[in-house]
Amino acid sequence: MPAPSQRTQVRRLPERGAYDPAVIHAILDAAFLCHVGFVHDGAPVVIPTGYGRRGDNLYLHGSSASRMLRTLRTGVDVCCTVTLLDGLVLARSVFHHSMNYRSVVVFGRATAVEDPAEKLAALAVISNQIAPGRWDAARHPNPQELKATLVLKLPLAEASAKIRTGPPKDEAEDYALPVWAGVIPARLAFGEPEPDARLAPAAPPAPRVRT
Amino acid sequence: MPAPSQRTQVRRLPERGAYDPAVIHAILDAAFLCHVGFVHDGAPVVIPTGYGRRGDNLYLHGSSASRMLRTLRTGVDVCCTVTLLDGLVLARSVFHHSMNYRSVVVFGRATAVEDPAEKLAALAVISNQIAPGRWDAARHPNPQELKATLVLKLPLAEASAKIRTGPPKDEAEDYALPVWAGVIPARLAFGEPEPDARLAPAAPPAPRVRT
Repeated sequence: MPAPSQRTQVRRLPERGAYDPAVIHAILDAAFLCHVGFVHDGAPVVIPTGYGRRGDNLYLHGSSASRMLRTLRTGVDVCCTVTLLDGLVLARSVFHHSMNYRSVVVFGRATAVEDPAEKLAALAVISNQIAPGRWDAARHPNPQELKATLVLKLPLAEASAKIRTGPPKDEAEDYALPVWAGVIPARLAFGEPEPDARLAPAAPPAPRVRT
Repeated sequence: MPAPSQRTQVRRLPERGAYDPAVIHAILDAAFLCHVGFVHDGAPVVIPTGYGRRGDNLYLHGSSASRMLRTLRTGVDVCCTVTLLDGLVLARSVFHHSMNYRSVVVFGRATAVEDPAEKLAALAVISNQIAPGRWDAARHPNPQELKATLVLKLPLAEASAKIRTGPPKDEAEDYALPVWAGVIPARLAFGEPEPDARLAPAAPPAPRVRT
């Protein structure tokens, strides 16, 4: 297990920190939305976007005209954070309320994926992470679309996870209080697929998305 | 409706941008988790945290020992982003895949809430935003707990929303493809409450959390 770097080390509540790549990969693979932080004109900017993870890299993509991607590709520092909310932790005291969650913070610098084969492979990774199997189900990018798409690779070399699980932790004297305490589980849930109004008659049934 | 500032103006796909405070407030009130971006040692850092919104302010809180809160209270630039994922938008081509979402980006500088009454009121706002009614249900903070809690206020003066809704938009020639297309709705869902093992016999039933 690699040692945490100066900035990935979880300082407050260090028992919640994890640096094992397997733990970090598992959290990244259970999500597909991240919040990307970068500095623009001297001030921080945080933008949500989809991603894919393969090996020790995180892939981002978007329009070649995107300000975020154009800024990142210049090699500036970036922080990419993924958060899975697992529950609301309701304690007897307001003070001890918390949330159960799994999060990963990645620090690093991104580079553009220029090689066409690697770029297609990265787009397949992103596509399948957001909607499993989607790369094979939909029409692949043509040369103009590929050109209009910027793909960035962010190494997971400097990453850490933070995890909270379990029930609330109350003050000893509060356990007798007539207050409901426990966990309200939370998860991202997907509903019934809504077919497009112009669906082709030969279209297959709606895909199953992870639940 | 206030004009967007230089940095809140949505540049790419400007039809998705919204600057109406009522729209911004509605999105902020439908969530309780944000991603806070700030610059530390010259590099961006993005941390997830709970929040509450009242009037034209967003309130953050946490341990007085938190690096993030201690950094923010010095008055540095902060970007606070809230994202509600509403659906996966599956198009006939990989290129036109998208997501339906409502997001808000707030730029500004936070200040510490020092006045005890305002601090308690802010904690009530945060508490009730995360779990409605929770402020009245649980034991309030005592003086030591209040001292150990830092509450910050971030004005919503420079905020913008970005929204995507509706079906995929495909290339004209792709509509005939035998590919399923449409929207898979997504939302944060809450499960059956899990009572703490040490629940007091006189505790009321589990609260209902927003669904």
